[in-house]
Amino acid sequence: MGGAIVSDLLTEILIPVAAVIGIAFALIQWLLVSKVQLTPDRKTTSGEDNKNGTGDYLIEEEEGTNEDNVFVKCAEIQKAISEGATSFLFTEYKYVGIFMIAFAVLIFLFLGSVEGFSTKEQPCTYIKDKTCKPALSNAIFSTIAFLLGAVTSVASGFLGMKIATFANARTTLEARKGVGKAFITAFRSGSVMGFLLAANGLFVLYLSINLFKLYYGDDWEGLFEAITGYGLGGSSMALFGRVGGGIYTKAADVGADLVGKVERNIPEDDPRNPAVIADNVGDNVGDIAGMGSDLFGSYAESSCAALVVASISSFGTSHDLTGMFYPLLISSMGIIICLITTLFATDFFEIRAVQEIEPALKRQLIISTALMTVGIAIVSWLALPSSFTIFNFGVQKEVKNWELFFCVAIGLWAGLVIGFVTEYYTSNAYSPVQDVADSCRTGAATNVIFGLALGYKSVIIPIFAIAISIFVSFSLAAMYGIAVAALGMLSTIATGLAIDAYGPISDNAGGIAEMAGMSHRIRERTDALDAAGNTTAAIGKGFAIGSAALVSLALFGAFVSRAAISTVDVLTPKVFIGLIVGAMLPYWFSAMTMKSVGSAALKMVEEVRRQFNSIPGLMEGTAKPDYATCVKISTDASIKEMIPPGALVMLTPLIVGTFFGVETLAGVLAGSLVSGVQIAISASNTGGAWDNAKKYIEAGASEHARTLGPKGSDPHKAAVIGDTIGDPLKDTSGPSLNILIKLMAVESLVFAPFFATHGGLLFKLF
Amino acid sequence: MGGAIVSDLLTEILIPVAAVIGIAFALIQWLLVSKVQLTPDRKTTSGEDNKNGTGDYLIEEEEGTNEDNVFVKCAEIQKAISEGATSFLFTEYKYVGIFMIAFAVLIFLFLGSVEGFSTKEQPCTYIKDKTCKPALSNAIFSTIAFLLGAVTSVASGFLGMKIATFANARTTLEARKGVGKAFITAFRSGSVMGFLLAANGLFVLYLSINLFKLYYGDDWEGLFEAITGYGLGGSSMALFGRVGGGIYTKAADVGADLVGKVERNIPEDDPRNPAVIADNVGDNVGDIAGMGSDLFGSYAESSCAALVVASISSFGTSHDLTGMFYPLLISSMGIIICLITTLFATDFFEIRAVQEIEPALKRQLIISTALMTVGIAIVSWLALPSSFTIFNFGVQKEVKNWELFFCVAIGLWAGLVIGFVTEYYTSNAYSPVQDVADSCRTGAATNVIFGLALGYKSVIIPIFAIAISIFVSFSLAAMYGIAVAALGMLSTIATGLAIDAYGPISDNAGGIAEMAGMSHRIRERTDALDAAGNTTAAIGKGFAIGSAALVSLALFGAFVSRAAISTVDVLTPKVFIGLIVGAMLPYWFSAMTMKSVGSAALKMVEEVRRQFNSIPGLMEGTAKPDYATCVKISTDASIKEMIPPGALVMLTPLIVGTFFGVETLAGVLAGSLVSGVQIAISASNTGGAWDNAKKYIEAGASEHARTLGPKGSDPHKAAVIGDTIGDPLKDTSGPSLNILIKLMAVESLVFAPFFATHGGLLFKLF
Repeated sequence: MGGAIVSDLLTEILIPVAAVIGIAFALIQWLLVSKVQLTPDRKTTSGEDNKNGTGDYLIEEEEGTNEDNVFVKCAEIQKAISEGATSFLFTEYKYVGIFMIAFAVLIFLFLGSVEGFSTKEQPCTYIKDKTCKPALSNAIFSTIAFLLGAVTSVASGFLGMKIATFANARTTLEARKGVGKAFITAFRSGSVMGFLLAANGLFVLYLSINLFKLYYGDDWEGLFEAITGYGLGGSSMALFGRVGGGIYTKAADVGADLVGKVERNIPEDDPRNPAVIADNVGDNVGDIAGMGSDLFGSYAESSCAALVVASISSFGTSHDLTGMFYPLLISSMGIIICLITTLFATDFFEIRAVQEIEPALKRQLIISTALMTVGIAIVSWLALPSSFTIFNFGVQKEVKNWELFFCVAIGLWAGLVIGFVTEYYTSNAYSPVQDVADSCRTGAATNVIFGLALGYKSVIIPIFAIAISIFVSFSLAAMYGIAVAALGMLSTIATGLAIDAYGPISDNAGGIAEMAGMSHRIRERTDALDAAGNTTAAIGKGFAIGSAALVSLALFGAFVSRAAISTVDVLTPKVFIGLIVGAMLPYWFSAMTMKSVGSAALKMVEEVRRQFNSIPGLMEGTAKPDYATCVKISTDASIKEMIPPGALVMLTPLIVGTFFGVETLAGVLAGSLVSGVQIAISASNTGGAWDNAKKYIEAGASEHARTLGPKGSDPHKAAVIGDTIGDPLKDTSGPSLNILIKLMAVESLVFAPFFATHGGLLFKLF
Repeated sequence: MGGAIVSDLLTEILIPVAAVIGIAFALIQWLLVSKVQLTPDRKTTSGEDNKNGTGDYLIEEEEGTNEDNVFVKCAEIQKAISEGATSFLFTEYKYVGIFMIAFAVLIFLFLGSVEGFSTKEQPCTYIKDKTCKPALSNAIFSTIAFLLGAVTSVASGFLGMKIATFANARTTLEARKGVGKAFITAFRSGSVMGFLLAANGLFVLYLSINLFKLYYGDDWEGLFEAITGYGLGGSSMALFGRVGGGIYTKAADVGADLVGKVERNIPEDDPRNPAVIADNVGDNVGDIAGMGSDLFGSYAESSCAALVVASISSFGTSHDLTGMFYPLLISSMGIIICLITTLFATDFFEIRAVQEIEPALKRQLIISTALMTVGIAIVSWLALPSSFTIFNFGVQKEVKNWELFFCVAIGLWAGLVIGFVTEYYTSNAYSPVQDVADSCRTGAATNVIFGLALGYKSVIIPIFAIAISIFVSFSLAAMYGIAVAALGMLSTIATGLAIDAYGPISDNAGGIAEMAGMSHRIRERTDALDAAGNTTAAIGKGFAIGSAALVSLALFGAFVSRAAISTVDVLTPKVFIGLIVGAMLPYWFSAMTMKSVGSAALKMVEEVRRQFNSIPGLMEGTAKPDYATCVKISTDASIKEMIPPGALVMLTPLIVGTFFGVETLAGVLAGSLVSGVQIAISASNTGGAWDNAKKYIEAGASEHARTLGPKGSDPHKAAVIGDTIGDPLKDTSGPSLNILIKLMAVESLVFAPFFATHGGLLFKLF
């Protein structure tokens, strides 16, 4: 057992340094974005560099860069979107804040009651001859960690939204100068969010551990048990963010489309549509803030899962701080690698034509993955002893440092595979989406049938990728292997988030262009950015789901260890009923969220129709619609409707654990994991494919596409129906399912001591 | 341990007697149906009893009973449908026959190789001090049992189809005399099928066991191991029947609707539509023959699962024949109970109005369940010793006879609960379907969103019902409890099949009325029968899925026992990857079947369009369409397209077992079970709800419904799109999934000795 090359002190320095570098880089990017001014300024807007964006069919020329009133309009629209988003998030946070406090109390009471709120120190669970801090401390610190995680998650989402609403109008303005400029603005803004989140998450976690250590001293078992609260806090806020934001955005989107596009035949994002502001606000609160919270949650949970397993392995028992912090070092390395990767998109290469956008984004994935593989190797070599032991359900398993390298690397590469498969099934450059578009020839019904079949099919390879990662990493390093594999998949989170956030920013930019009455050429450019954004959004969801699957399994493993279950045998009735009911939960959850979107959209449709019918001059563009009422409908609906699905997810582990005990709960976790991951992948890919099938017909970039179009043709109408159905699938129920599976797992982990002591009431009674 | 009250000799007599009574009853029903003549005959058609069918909005009068040319037309159409169905089934059986032989050879080779084709007797697996027949005998007799099961399954499907095509035109002709007469004809025909299948399945199984016993003597372990081949044969034919028939029927249905209803605006089943004969043939080969094979398969498998577990329990080791035949006695009792139940529908009560149809069918379920509960109690009291032991994964568990009664009864009642929940979610008498219909106001997109949400939601209660049945029956009598619970759910199979087959027969009757140009009054009557049939079809699917879940679990348990696995621990990587990949298989399978229907429907659409465009006078009704080409398209597509999904299901257990071993295979079975059951339920309920939402708008029976209609309105068009999307969900991919989960389990069970000896090659190599 050779020691690590890096000293503990150096580790303690390197991690915060990486975090600070990440934050600094984010600020620099922000500075660069903010140079695009929202007020007329000849110096900036008539930039000397107009060779950008000379593509094939969208020959780029500077266009309309001299019109002052465009600035005024853009600034005005941006302000409306930003205010709408801020106001919604504050309303959301108000409700969520109440929940947060209530749940914090619950955590304290449940965990405190484990040893009857005794302040007496107790023998440790895993290292029998030592004494650990009392259960009450665990209750207190878990609660604090929960609150820290929750606040960081909320801050991540909020910051993301702020950046996105800051960047959207700037991207529109840059689009006047060409696709290349607009791309860089949107992408830089995305990376502000990516780096801030990654660095912030790392920093808060690092700080919490070090602060908690002041109390816990060398009781690392207790310390890292308490730290799991951080993951729970992060994920529970993410749940409300995703569900609330998802309902908001899709109610507005579906409502706006159904009346605007289908009934009134006006373009998307037309300023005459009363729901248009709500729709654009929705992109920011759902796709940006929701997704930010979600990925932050995944990151926090996979770190916590890895740390809690490590704390009862040789790293923890021998107090090897550098080894213990291996997960954080991987994340630190990730920030540096992503920083280099970002330069490839913004500085080393230039986008000159529309068809270069998707390859540029894909290149980001490949570069970050390739570089990160080296990064992981370096960290594994420097920070790990050549050999160590890992806790594996009651026994210690010998692991070599290169084996751990393989675990992280396979997670990373599985992420890439999932990303590319997702791209294949959702990009209109390949046959699957083109087949779906072609099926619109015979109407909406075949479009839906083909779309659903595509989503189902797109599950196959990602599941094999996940299964192989699980098998390899588990075989090499048990549950710790799976936790670091998840971390590997998330190690390039800064880049992942950047290309993920890029989509909604471009979408908004297009909306602003339309609303500001800018020329169709500009709208075409933002549409091209947006089409690539749809694919990258699907890729991002693929990552989110894949990592969620690994994270949940790691948390599940940690839960099982902590709840002192030796096997989770499918053949015992307690476990099997958990398994089948767990597999049902994603359906129940999806039923709720989809119905919520449907009902909210119906209300929106009625309001939009009412405005069109009752406001004279609205269709002619002489009167302004009442945007605020639509914003209010979306807000009210999402706040009201996020509670039942939220309650389902948050209460299930508590009820099952308390009344049925840990075995049934283990079954529920396994069932919801294996079933939820399939629905999540298929739902988001089906939705993405429908969206891009519609864009494929609209863009008419190939012979085949032109036979289906133009806008307004029967196949196009069928495609619009598919797109509308896909909205709640890909942006509400699908991505929320990640959180369902992660959150139930982390919640079970945090409450494991309570369930193990007081759980299974029903079976105890009978 | 008190002995059973019924002697072994009496048991050996009672079972075949019950089977013969069932067959005789079926023949009597057939005789009654055949009294409705297809040639003009005043004595029959001017029946003295015209008080039938005085309802509220469909006041019944005899109508058009004196027109001779109606007979000619009906007979002609019936002949076309019957010939089409027969020809398709023969084509299907030709291909399936080749597969059957090939697979029989495979079974022989795989099982024979377990002990290297040795003819030496070997020590028994469970009773160590005895010698059992050689593995080679097991190979030979399993193969024979497989072939017997396959032939019985094929015969069941074929007979059902023959009866249905015999009854459809007769139902149409009776509809002239009122709803009541038509209902009785359709229902009697359904019960011919129900009783023939139930009695036939029981009889062949009984006979096989007794014949096998001539060789096996008192080696019951080997005898009942070999008998499991019967279940495999039944289910593998059912797979091809369901998938092939499902693709056939939905390709024709979707194709006919897309051109006929949507583009040409002609009614359903209009004789001008070239795909109309294919569509009506489809009902018979898909919904009748396919479903018959499917439920026969479930019945055969649950019996086999119960028998194989019993053979290694005290029944088997103490050679208690009556106890051993308990599952067969339950089925025998079921036939008698269903016979009495049927009389309630055909003789004790009379249908006088449309709105009495659904209650009458529901009453069938309630009566049969209530009576059967008593029947089970009687059988349990008479045939079981007061106490006995059941094999439970290596240990013997003490069970009382009343405990076993509870196991069977809970399965029976869980079936009723599933049936009623299904009815609630798919009948247009309740709010869920009405909400879906209402969402058509805002177009097809919201209809689809609400429909999908409905399907997801409809999963919740059935899963809890299944989970509770599993928990109770497992706790009381381990895997044997689950097997008899499944048998309990299927004990009223004769009634279940009768009301199930009633639907497609009514559907066909409506089609014939339309094609024969009969008055709209008659079409309205058959439509009313059909609407009730849609709901009962959904109920039947609910039963099929619920019982499939229980059966698979029982088979799974038997497989685990036989493969000598002690635990299936989710926390081992081998099992977990099986679990997650298993949960993916239903998606893969659904992707294939849905895409097949979509592609075949596209071909059908092209052909139908071609005919409308190229045959002069077709739309005017002066020229006849070329029905045969459409029939050929459906036939070719279904034969070609059933192979990949069939191969997926049949090969997966073989590949996984051979290369990854029994633990991974156990994971795959558990995963596909818990995931597949959800998709199957949601798919068939979503489809049923869409179909009835459309019928709700068309019928316009309430104030609310009339605001959405009439036919041709925008909401109605949206409802038609939903209905079309639902077709492959409810009639192809949904119901085929039952078979997927059952078949993989029974196949694993049959091949278990091979996998246990030679399996897991990949892990052995590395």
